[in-house]
Amino acid sequence: MQTLSSYLEGEWVTGEGEGTALHDATTGEAVASVCSTGLDRGAALRHAREIGGPALRAMSFAERGALLEGLAGIIHAHRDELLELSTRNGGTTRGDGKFDIDGAAGTLSWYAYLGKKLGDARILLDGDAERVLRSKRFVGQHVHTTRRGVAIHINAFNFPAWGMAEKAAVALLAGMPVVTKPGTSTAWVTHRIVELWVESGLLPPGALQLLVGSAGDLLDHVDPQDCVAFTGGTETARRIRGHEAVVKHHVRVNIEADSLNASVLAPDVDRDSDTFQMFVNQVVKDLTQKAGQKCTAVRRILVPADRMDEVAEALVDVLDGVIVGTPTTKGVDIGPVASAAQQATVRAGLEELGAGCQLVWRKEAPAQGYFVTPSLFRSDAGLDTPFVHEHEVFGPCATLLAYDGAAASAVDIVAAGGGGLVASVYSDDPTWAGEAVLGIAPFSGRVHWGSRKVADQSPGPGTVLPNLVHGGPGKAGGGEELGGLRGLHFYMQRTAIQADKGLLDRAFRAAGVLASEG
Amino acid sequence: MQTLSSYLEGEWVTGEGEGTALHDATTGEAVASVCSTGLDRGAALRHAREIGGPALRAMSFAERGALLEGLAGIIHAHRDELLELSTRNGGTTRGDGKFDIDGAAGTLSWYAYLGKKLGDARILLDGDAERVLRSKRFVGQHVHTTRRGVAIHINAFNFPAWGMAEKAAVALLAGMPVVTKPGTSTAWVTHRIVELWVESGLLPPGALQLLVGSAGDLLDHVDPQDCVAFTGGTETARRIRGHEAVVKHHVRVNIEADSLNASVLAPDVDRDSDTFQMFVNQVVKDLTQKAGQKCTAVRRILVPADRMDEVAEALVDVLDGVIVGTPTTKGVDIGPVASAAQQATVRAGLEELGAGCQLVWRKEAPAQGYFVTPSLFRSDAGLDTPFVHEHEVFGPCATLLAYDGAAASAVDIVAAGGGGLVASVYSDDPTWAGEAVLGIAPFSGRVHWGSRKVADQSPGPGTVLPNLVHGGPGKAGGGEELGGLRGLHFYMQRTAIQADKGLLDRAFRAAGVLASEG
Repeated sequence: MQTLSSYLEGEWVTGEGEGTALHDATTGEAVASVCSTGLDRGAALRHAREIGGPALRAMSFAERGALLEGLAGIIHAHRDELLELSTRNGGTTRGDGKFDIDGAAGTLSWYAYLGKKLGDARILLDGDAERVLRSKRFVGQHVHTTRRGVAIHINAFNFPAWGMAEKAAVALLAGMPVVTKPGTSTAWVTHRIVELWVESGLLPPGALQLLVGSAGDLLDHVDPQDCVAFTGGTETARRIRGHEAVVKHHVRVNIEADSLNASVLAPDVDRDSDTFQMFVNQVVKDLTQKAGQKCTAVRRILVPADRMDEVAEALVDVLDGVIVGTPTTKGVDIGPVASAAQQATVRAGLEELGAGCQLVWRKEAPAQGYFVTPSLFRSDAGLDTPFVHEHEVFGPCATLLAYDGAAASAVDIVAAGGGGLVASVYSDDPTWAGEAVLGIAPFSGRVHWGSRKVADQSPGPGTVLPNLVHGGPGKAGGGEELGGLRGLHFYMQRTAIQADKGLLDRAFRAAGVLASEG
Repeated sequence: MQTLSSYLEGEWVTGEGEGTALHDATTGEAVASVCSTGLDRGAALRHAREIGGPALRAMSFAERGALLEGLAGIIHAHRDELLELSTRNGGTTRGDGKFDIDGAAGTLSWYAYLGKKLGDARILLDGDAERVLRSKRFVGQHVHTTRRGVAIHINAFNFPAWGMAEKAAVALLAGMPVVTKPGTSTAWVTHRIVELWVESGLLPPGALQLLVGSAGDLLDHVDPQDCVAFTGGTETARRIRGHEAVVKHHVRVNIEADSLNASVLAPDVDRDSDTFQMFVNQVVKDLTQKAGQKCTAVRRILVPADRMDEVAEALVDVLDGVIVGTPTTKGVDIGPVASAAQQATVRAGLEELGAGCQLVWRKEAPAQGYFVTPSLFRSDAGLDTPFVHEHEVFGPCATLLAYDGAAASAVDIVAAGGGGLVASVYSDDPTWAGEAVLGIAPFSGRVHWGSRKVADQSPGPGTVLPNLVHGGPGKAGGGEELGGLRGLHFYMQRTAIQADKGLLDRAFRAAGVLASEG
């Protein structure tokens, strides 16, 4: 059985002691182990700051972009091997594995392209130079410069490739060295990617380190120039945000946590319309893809009260054709969840949902491995089903919720989730949808509006895109990642420079850190 | 003796019990009292969310701008009364009072002007609509919409007018209702301004509430759509950032805390140059203005080692002419600090500085009232004087620090402050200054570069301007305020909308929330 080492300070190292086993999600068999006990996390952070940071900052955006393109190419070249590992460790179907692994390569490539566009520069201009007082000569110019610390990435188990790569792409392009920690239960894919990257020799020394296993005392060693980005559950999110050293040094924190994502079907959408079909397809996709273990998957489906039966029927029609089983079997739509712990948590959540709501549909799942029972629930009580609005059950399940058909009511129910990553609205009525979309916006990092003319062009709300922000207010963690250039700003300090315009232009040139707009 | 009430839920209310006295900083005499014990802070926040928020969101940016212009006009119309109160309660000279009160009116007017420019819109566009996949029709458009919570402003004692107004201007223009809490010891000026505003009838119901006295359990009542902006000391900053309810709901927090602001004199600046004179004037201004109780005041003055004597002499030449005394006396440059507590803290800090550094200059101060001894220190040990880089002594004092003349060394010493609000560099050499300014940038929210041709045009690093960001990384709190439109984003949620371009444009119009660029 392979032991997955950590890559710290330029060496592969393993902690002392027993370690933790990783399992095949489909069979429950132990397939690898990790151990990080005793590893010197403080030294890793210093290594990043002292070796990795200067190396990356010496590169232009274009050079860092070329690095990302190289890293993307390595993932692509080893796609089949990684897909196999993904299935073995995470229990993903081939389609689910592609979503993760192609998503990783795609996001790296997208940021590589952005780096190329930013060119030879190493700082970003923010807005134009503007007069600060009467004189035209004395100006204020905002710039973004790379922070001098380390980007600490603590990732979730559900996207071992994409989750790691989307954070690393943005930090590396911004010029910050990365220490990345995958979710332990599915760390194998991350480990293999980093191993391939290290073997390639593409990474500058100290630019990327990998900590496999427990975070341990990692955050005790943060300093004011560091950035912490976390994706995962609410409890850990709160521990990170309230961590003593993080609070003491006002360390930047970006969090992406639980989210009760909602889909709203507007009253104008007829059952025989393309928009209705789009709604059905996208709800089913969110419920099945990655066994529902997607932070953007829909959990609450808002339907006009007088159409609940009709919509439930249409969804069940499709869901009845879904196949649950061994992910290596062709045609299987839903595999197991990622780990025994996840299985237990999701099962408990399904029981809670079952207690407060009516079961509309379920499908038997294999007894062996980490399978759960895919389920669709229904509540006609709207806001009076508190569990539905408070607890994300992170598996193949969602709940139909009745509302009175008014856009304002839909907004109130979406808002009851306390802030989410994404919401979707299906409507061809711009007046109704305008009220809904803009009413939901303060409560959501992204709003996906499905309509007739784009019915065949949308990847659905569940797909995170590199040029749109990802993250949401409140319960969703209050964070924001990606969004093209916007994502880079988290890893850079915005500074207002007040200076003589002529001297400032000469200084930018002299310092060899040409500025790029962004 | 006047009791300063709080203005909550549309009424002037006073807490129960003894209350806390406010004093005349020049004489120590008690002049007013405040008491907030038992006031229902949770109800005030709900009032803001339920009454103030909808009222403000119904207004366009232009209408909110007109409101700010009205509020500015009221301050201006009562300038003399407010200046007198400022001197009586805060011990400010007339010049120091103007800095605060005119700064308040000026910032409100500046944001009023911005509101006018934004026009009839109520949401802000962030970037252009861009293609998210292959189709031109299906686009992603980022927007900023007003958050549905309340803006909680906890202000510092040193700027009772400006501090309150700069935060309120930005939040109100963004459409968020405000609950503002002044620093208790100097709350009288804030109280009077709010009293005048309420009397004017300009404020929509619930748009602005005033809590005078202790914050009490205010933060226990926050919800995920609220924003907390704090200016003040490190210890309170950490309590706010780590507050249980703030962490639990991922409430947005903006903090402006201690800052070891630095000024760097470059080796190229001769004693007889305009740039040198600018350096001397601005250092002296920061040391004297508001008795050094300015969050942007210089604390560390970096001077090439071989010029320490010369620079000390030049500064002492000017400082010897400084007059310390009763702020109502014409010609007085330095009045008392704001309170007995401040006096004790600053005195303790001066002792610590005296223990680690050499005293270069001091001036006797009156024995009565909250005066401290203005002092200039010197250390030739650079980084080996830890207290100087770790503790802000918030009074009329600063320390000359020797460095070796290299820009990189100056950057290292500035960085040792752990992150600051502002740093300044005095140089006419674009190569040297480029390295220094851009090297300091990651550690500073603002960098002021003084040079010959702008020597007579700069207000100095100590003046915060509405169109440049204010705030700094790390020890300075990791926050960012003002900066024109940038400041509004804190009070708004950025959301990526994915939609059919044609429908989205119609929806913006139909929802009556025209979009403005920003």
